[in-house]
Amino acid sequence: MPKAAGKKNAFYAQSGGVTAVINASACGVIETARRNKDRIGKVYAGRNGIIGALTEDLIDTSKESARAIAALRHTPSGAFGSCRYKLKSLEANRREYERLIEVFAAHNIGYFFYNGGGDSADTCLKVSQLSKSLGYPIQAIHVPKTVDNDLPITDNCPGFGSVAKYIAISTREASFDVASMAKTSTKIFVLEVMGRHAGWIAAAGGLAASEDCDLPIVILFPEVPFSQTRFLKTVKDKVKKYGYCSIVVSEGVHDRSGKFLADQGLKDAFGHAQLGGVAPVIANLVRDKLGYKYHWAVADYLQRAARHIASKSDVDQAYAMGKAAVEMALAGKNSVMPTIVRTSNAPYRWKVGEAKLSRVANVEKMMPKSFITKDGFGITKRCRTYLEPLIRGEDYPPYKNGMPKYVQLKNVAVRKKLEKSFKVK
Amino acid sequence: MPKAAGKKNAFYAQSGGVTAVINASACGVIETARRNKDRIGKVYAGRNGIIGALTEDLIDTSKESARAIAALRHTPSGAFGSCRYKLKSLEANRREYERLIEVFAAHNIGYFFYNGGGDSADTCLKVSQLSKSLGYPIQAIHVPKTVDNDLPITDNCPGFGSVAKYIAISTREASFDVASMAKTSTKIFVLEVMGRHAGWIAAAGGLAASEDCDLPIVILFPEVPFSQTRFLKTVKDKVKKYGYCSIVVSEGVHDRSGKFLADQGLKDAFGHAQLGGVAPVIANLVRDKLGYKYHWAVADYLQRAARHIASKSDVDQAYAMGKAAVEMALAGKNSVMPTIVRTSNAPYRWKVGEAKLSRVANVEKMMPKSFITKDGFGITKRCRTYLEPLIRGEDYPPYKNGMPKYVQLKNVAVRKKLEKSFKVK
Repeated sequence: MPKAAGKKNAFYAQSGGVTAVINASACGVIETARRNKDRIGKVYAGRNGIIGALTEDLIDTSKESARAIAALRHTPSGAFGSCRYKLKSLEANRREYERLIEVFAAHNIGYFFYNGGGDSADTCLKVSQLSKSLGYPIQAIHVPKTVDNDLPITDNCPGFGSVAKYIAISTREASFDVASMAKTSTKIFVLEVMGRHAGWIAAAGGLAASEDCDLPIVILFPEVPFSQTRFLKTVKDKVKKYGYCSIVVSEGVHDRSGKFLADQGLKDAFGHAQLGGVAPVIANLVRDKLGYKYHWAVADYLQRAARHIASKSDVDQAYAMGKAAVEMALAGKNSVMPTIVRTSNAPYRWKVGEAKLSRVANVEKMMPKSFITKDGFGITKRCRTYLEPLIRGEDYPPYKNGMPKYVQLKNVAVRKKLEKSFKVK
Repeated sequence: MPKAAGKKNAFYAQSGGVTAVINASACGVIETARRNKDRIGKVYAGRNGIIGALTEDLIDTSKESARAIAALRHTPSGAFGSCRYKLKSLEANRREYERLIEVFAAHNIGYFFYNGGGDSADTCLKVSQLSKSLGYPIQAIHVPKTVDNDLPITDNCPGFGSVAKYIAISTREASFDVASMAKTSTKIFVLEVMGRHAGWIAAAGGLAASEDCDLPIVILFPEVPFSQTRFLKTVKDKVKKYGYCSIVVSEGVHDRSGKFLADQGLKDAFGHAQLGGVAPVIANLVRDKLGYKYHWAVADYLQRAARHIASKSDVDQAYAMGKAAVEMALAGKNSVMPTIVRTSNAPYRWKVGEAKLSRVANVEKMMPKSFITKDGFGITKRCRTYLEPLIRGEDYPPYKNGMPKYVQLKNVAVRKKLEKSFKVK
């Protein structure tokens, strides 16, 4: 086949905290680009996100086999490395943008796919404006991703469904455990989950209980200022009725003055500040005030890396977002983000939509008040209706010798073409 | 079918910390008893372990459908309630034993199946001696269970394989995550696991890395006194080579003087003692001394309740132990425990063996020195050969709406026959 005239290469990078399914989006981008070889050249991945672009540290994904790329679909984390780095405005750091253009031009890059959350959408928006402000033709498409589920316009964010499923299942399992132990031992189980600003992940703990599975779950949301009196009364009532209680606490829970409960000013034996989680704080409070034995867990990275129990809805949507991003680029679009549009709850149906990046960047979608029960400790039916489809379906990775087979790519570097190196701050 | 003369009922109870597969053993006991209805009457379960026997709080398992009993095989935790309660010696508390006999006699119980670890084996041994010491005919069979994997004679303990699988997978997944973040953010991930005396569970973290999956894992075993200098050097070397490092730390890690690292004498803002885990202690140490950003997780109950990713070897063996216990009872045996006998590593083969309870009770099997690498931070090939078959195979529970369908039994109480109640201390 003759090489299409003016065929541009694509840049793809992962940004911010990684998820169980961000690589499924990468898979969607790369496979779709490969299916359109007549119109898109190579897909170069940024090593460690946008930093890879700035430092001309590009990965040639064409060196990976079809099989390796397919395996991204079931591999958690960011296969090319992620970063926490936000581009400043053009006014504040023009040099960064000029450098991007130098790198893109040197490698004939005409498509920019950035896979991340709200901050990354802002980076992507700025890059999308390069053609206008600096006269370099580039189409920038954002691929949504965040366990925080806080991007606007899209019904939900890839990455969230799998965390939600993990937290819902873990809370159910641990609740069964503490129920068994409650007679002579542990009566309280506390699980700390992610979500500093919004309680989406904590809300998923509410799915542990369902119509056919009655469990006492108390949720502490960052949206609800912590009231010790009301919390203790609620826990006491649950223990009175059930004999035990599970508490799902968001890391971002704070009191009325805005002080995080996790920030207890702890000092270790050497006088060093000890950064503990909020779970032990809640557990100790319950023990001190109510006298119940407790256990506590902090899920941390386990929740967002748990590809072994990823939601099928989530995996499918993550892939679809990557695929749609490439299709939008091929349709000549710029400065947009594919979205998930829910068209029906029962049966659950969704389709791919489109949002302008200017409407996405720096906008945080909070959980609606109507999703939290009046007492502040549970989820409403409306919340359940929203959450349930997102955790639906299991999408198990393949296993070998009892362990999931996750791919580690070769990540072959593209030969540098620029003479100057660039130092990121 | 005419009722067999002298057909005795059976008592079954769960004891100590529960596991992802102890109900699979219950399933094995009850299904096998049901298949031998001509020789065994009803199976009465003790509500909350031996306490149910002492207080005549029995559950009639015949009220449960075949389907509900079958579902125990894929349901974590103890379906009848467990307890932490150890019978004293006959000399120290004769009244307890007399009470047991009264309850057993009132309900025509001739078989005693006790599902637990080392302490429970001791309880079972004592009950097995009732026929001799108090002249009551009973056959007591112990069903092995413990995530600690510390029962002697048996090659491994039901419950351990599933925890090991969970820790191995979680460590692999979180390692992939931190690898993605290491360039600009988190370089160290710390996972705290169970195992106060023996490092069996911590060792499972070593399975996260394998021949086809190179990951930097540092394990802190309770068997190896903590040396800060050597630990920090090992972590630093890993970060130098890989850019990041995962640390799996047993809750029981202590220094040369025997002091637990978790016991840091922390005080909260009100001067209350704060019981933190060992994970934040290790994480803070790494930050203070090496300056690396970190994340930490505490798996706690999640690890032993994680039926969603149970090991098939483990589930099969847990069921087999319950089944064998009933068969041993039917063969007229007393004061024994079925065991798992490994007959081949590759392919993995095992069969059911038998151990005298007098050789099991109060004996703790420690991890062999040859399982820990010379530097004290990893597992040897020998350890890997031992562990790998135990996590092999996935045994997924059924799902509904994205959540595992775990059974909650009716647990119908057997009508009490004794006039006197009994108070456990």
